[in-house]
Amino acid sequence: MDADILVENCIVVAMDGRPPITDGAIAIKGDKIVYVGKAEKAGDIKAETRIDARGMVALPGLINCHTHVPMTLLRGIAEDQPLEKWLRESIWPIEAKLTDEDVYYGTLLGCIEMIKGGTTCFADMYFHVDAMAKAIEEVGIRAAIAPGIIELGFPETGIAMLEDAVKFAERWHGKAEGRIVAQLGPHAPYTCGPELLMKAKQEAERLGIFLHIHLAESVKEVKDFNEKHGKTEFEFLEEIGFLGPKVLAAHCVQLTDKDMEIISKHGVKVAYNPTSNAKLGNGIARAWELHQLGVDVGLATDGPASNNTLDMVETLRWAALLQKAKYRDPTVMPLDTVLEMATIGGARVLGLEGEVGSLEPGKKADVILIDLKKPHLTPVHNVKATIVYSAKASDVDTVIIDGRLVMRNRRILTVDEEAVREKTGEISRDLMQR
Amino acid sequence: MDADILVENCIVVAMDGRPPITDGAIAIKGDKIVYVGKAEKAGDIKAETRIDARGMVALPGLINCHTHVPMTLLRGIAEDQPLEKWLRESIWPIEAKLTDEDVYYGTLLGCIEMIKGGTTCFADMYFHVDAMAKAIEEVGIRAAIAPGIIELGFPETGIAMLEDAVKFAERWHGKAEGRIVAQLGPHAPYTCGPELLMKAKQEAERLGIFLHIHLAESVKEVKDFNEKHGKTEFEFLEEIGFLGPKVLAAHCVQLTDKDMEIISKHGVKVAYNPTSNAKLGNGIARAWELHQLGVDVGLATDGPASNNTLDMVETLRWAALLQKAKYRDPTVMPLDTVLEMATIGGARVLGLEGEVGSLEPGKKADVILIDLKKPHLTPVHNVKATIVYSAKASDVDTVIIDGRLVMRNRRILTVDEEAVREKTGEISRDLMQR
Repeated sequence: MDADILVENCIVVAMDGRPPITDGAIAIKGDKIVYVGKAEKAGDIKAETRIDARGMVALPGLINCHTHVPMTLLRGIAEDQPLEKWLRESIWPIEAKLTDEDVYYGTLLGCIEMIKGGTTCFADMYFHVDAMAKAIEEVGIRAAIAPGIIELGFPETGIAMLEDAVKFAERWHGKAEGRIVAQLGPHAPYTCGPELLMKAKQEAERLGIFLHIHLAESVKEVKDFNEKHGKTEFEFLEEIGFLGPKVLAAHCVQLTDKDMEIISKHGVKVAYNPTSNAKLGNGIARAWELHQLGVDVGLATDGPASNNTLDMVETLRWAALLQKAKYRDPTVMPLDTVLEMATIGGARVLGLEGEVGSLEPGKKADVILIDLKKPHLTPVHNVKATIVYSAKASDVDTVIIDGRLVMRNRRILTVDEEAVREKTGEISRDLMQR
Repeated sequence: MDADILVENCIVVAMDGRPPITDGAIAIKGDKIVYVGKAEKAGDIKAETRIDARGMVALPGLINCHTHVPMTLLRGIAEDQPLEKWLRESIWPIEAKLTDEDVYYGTLLGCIEMIKGGTTCFADMYFHVDAMAKAIEEVGIRAAIAPGIIELGFPETGIAMLEDAVKFAERWHGKAEGRIVAQLGPHAPYTCGPELLMKAKQEAERLGIFLHIHLAESVKEVKDFNEKHGKTEFEFLEEIGFLGPKVLAAHCVQLTDKDMEIISKHGVKVAYNPTSNAKLGNGIARAWELHQLGVDVGLATDGPASNNTLDMVETLRWAALLQKAKYRDPTVMPLDTVLEMATIGGARVLGLEGEVGSLEPGKKADVILIDLKKPHLTPVHNVKATIVYSAKASDVDTVIIDGRLVMRNRRILTVDEEAVREKTGEISRDLMQR
């Protein structure tokens, strides 16, 4: 067999239901995986690039189901503040000043951070989306991009944003060798009225793409919505006919039992953001209960202004430990479950499970190698436990996305990391002066 | 002025009440800090070793107030299990087989991990403490070691362990150039009866050292204790006269309002272990309320079998975010507070605030440098926010303890990291076969 890349001599955690394969190998041809199994059976595979991954573990690339990557530029500008004050006084005024160029570089910076932490695919809702797509195309990562749509009492603004979003989807869906898919991002039910929400739904159905929306994030938002409408956001969205299996609902922290039934009944996908929900004082989502109900739950970081990282390796640990703390039970959200949520489960949440999320022949080659030869990863009694409970973003050694080596020995190969770091430093200093 | 080491051109976060010093410098002579201030004013300082720390931030070394370092060997052996089952079926049977040599290497491994994550001082309760002290002496870290004391219905065993602990304290307190201090470690009120607890207190007072004890950790432990004694652990310990300002209480997760008053009234020191408490399903401690009452609260990792790391950089973030999640308020446990708890506050918790915990002339030179030139640390709008909310253990570049360079450019200088990693790997594989 001929291959372009052969990764050899590692433990393979394929996330396809098989136990970890010791002395494993993965062969890649073009953008696809062509072999996953024992290294000894890969002996006759000829490959241009051979990677000796001794002492490492190979995994499907991690999938971040909800973020706002260009907010790297705003990381750390205002901390420990009430959510409303933080948004109105710090975040929104600065966001209003962002240009395409800012967003382009902010996206590059965030993608570099994600790749260095083993994330190969993410779902994002933001603005200046063409600039984002350009950065994503260059850096070589995979992404689902939802142009944000907000009306906030100005219906014509909402419609115009929706029209722009549809045009973006028509321009970019399936582009960058298929690495970019589009979503439509009506921001939330408190910023978009029912007409706009349903128009977005019709357009998403016509285009065959996902809707991406914030739901039940903060206590105040939910309280205000309930007071105004006499029902919860989920009850409201069910009534207007918005919900369905192609709806990606970010957060879902403040849920009633009935909300959880509605989510389950309509096959709504959920992005669980453990660190951001904690940091903004929103609490801990009922993610374990949702999982028990059969809901597809993916893991996410949220934007780096409210996290303040884009670190999915860390998120594995947070996702498990916060559930154990919430339910006061160490057996809930076990390590296999969170590892699934960050890989094949996350792929399901984005509708990409046919393409990515596990290491199987025929799937896109999104593969990461984690180096286990570290004191904090010693000893390895159970390699999945090592990944979930002990590994760090900085242990990710090599990243392959769509069959292309984008990081080797922690060096980014597609863009100039140092130049991006310097440029984004300049931009963010300038942003504070504008 | 003459110095041995001059650290130049960094931001200095001295934790002495001053704002961060840009273009700062720190001069070290012998084991002590002799200058902290602007680099330009350090121009005439002659130093044998000059460290150009451009793009880095200098901080006091982080202080881990409660752990069981040799449990590195047991990291990952049993996960996601109920606490009782985990202890009885996995941890205790293996711990019973540990030898001095195992503990020596397990300690070396844990100390290497801690140094690589910027921890320069820790408080530990374990067994085979002479082997631990030897490892600590060699690796060059600072530690407070409490030999564990347990009777569990065998009073003569308890007394014998106390006597051994006292001998250890007499042998080691103030040794290793003063880097080792001893504590006495009666394990908990449910494993040590009141006579043993009070004997330990008398001995600790005679020796002028701290008591280190587990309190109010799990729901079951507290429920069982309350049922048996008709009062809480803190009420019980107050009644028998055990409590005082030289008592280090680890965990304190399950507290009544009255327990918190008792802690405050007696000046008991508290070690808050956010990740371990979460992972074992014990919940989230009322650390912010304790802090508001004026209690000295330090941060801690607990042992690496229940964490599964010894990472104090990560713990900064966990300590803040879990409190915000618990109280559903982003303003509680602000970044300045957690940074204090991990440095000067932690020093107070161990009674070492006269020696370490801040960068001030006359104090011991325990200094760490964090490299800010990383994509995930870009931009830096507020350097303390960058440290607490974005930095990772792997960003620690250089560590100085007691005036001695123990890590430079992430290379451990005092012991052979690779050899320790291999040896501990062998030991832990062997342990599972014994």
